[in-house]
Amino acid sequence: MKDRSYLENLDKLMETITSGAFLTVKSGGSINTMTIGWATIGIVWRKEVFMVAVRDSRHTFSLIEKSSDFTVTIPTDPGSKEALMFCGTKSGRDYDKFIECGLQTRKAVTVESPIIDIAGVHYECKIIYKSAMDSAGLDEKLEKLYPAKDYHTLYFGEIVACYQTD
Amino acid sequence: MKDRSYLENLDKLMETITSGAFLTVKSGGSINTMTIGWATIGIVWRKEVFMVAVRDSRHTFSLIEKSSDFTVTIPTDPGSKEALMFCGTKSGRDYDKFIECGLQTRKAVTVESPIIDIAGVHYECKIIYKSAMDSAGLDEKLEKLYPAKDYHTLYFGEIVACYQTD
Repeated sequence: MKDRSYLENLDKLMETITSGAFLTVKSGGSINTMTIGWATIGIVWRKEVFMVAVRDSRHTFSLIEKSSDFTVTIPTDPGSKEALMFCGTKSGRDYDKFIECGLQTRKAVTVESPIIDIAGVHYECKIIYKSAMDSAGLDEKLEKLYPAKDYHTLYFGEIVACYQTD
Repeated sequence: MKDRSYLENLDKLMETITSGAFLTVKSGGSINTMTIGWATIGIVWRKEVFMVAVRDSRHTFSLIEKSSDFTVTIPTDPGSKEALMFCGTKSGRDYDKFIECGLQTRKAVTVESPIIDIAGVHYECKIIYKSAMDSAGLDEKLEKLYPAKDYHTLYFGEIVACYQTD
């Protein structure tokens, strides 16, 4: 299930993710998805890891803090542009993003959080390390990204499955 | 100076780094290099970042904590294997690794820390965020990597230059 295509196409994926990907989390009966444009990928703790960042002001934050996994769906079809815009600017507290955007979820293969059922590359990730940002360690030039002091928590997920759907 | 080849070849680079790369740091008059096998790369804080991890028991830790930058050299020639082994198992407190391994440094283009003067891909990175690992956020199965509780500090470097030398 973990084909190596995510490594073979890593260069394109990292370029793509800056245009937006879906970070999807389930906790209890609640599911939410949000748009991310930041991520890192690599090897840490002898595991293949995908790192995402979630501000503590986000609805997704309240879910991922209670969850042990997340998925990332990188769309391969430009038709997702509007949904990415909506999910990056509206809160799951105010809207059911799945209804608003006509997005469906699909059961993941290995984790509780579902994937977004669109053509794309899907990462299923089990959280193996998380760390609330320590502003003392942040370059002061980057403080402008946090006028409300709503720092990110960094979630390092072990990539337990990765595959592409058409 | 920042050619995009590091993105074009990211897949191969990430496979390579698990075989070892040199993390080189200068602080004041001291320079040390150590072997790393873990790293992540991607986009965070609107910057291209390279993340490395250094245990607080390392000689390199005492240098990088006082430095604002580091370099990573990923060898492209298998001739570096012995030096990688030495620099990954011996401490800069006990040996001058450059003399022991016959390694030369070369002035970096943009940062104070030098690169290793071998055929390879070189990343020059300015530290924009650092964070000592919080063991409370670590999967308990990974605690076995830290029998001496010498956790890593994670250094996120903005990639300010990247190039290949033959």
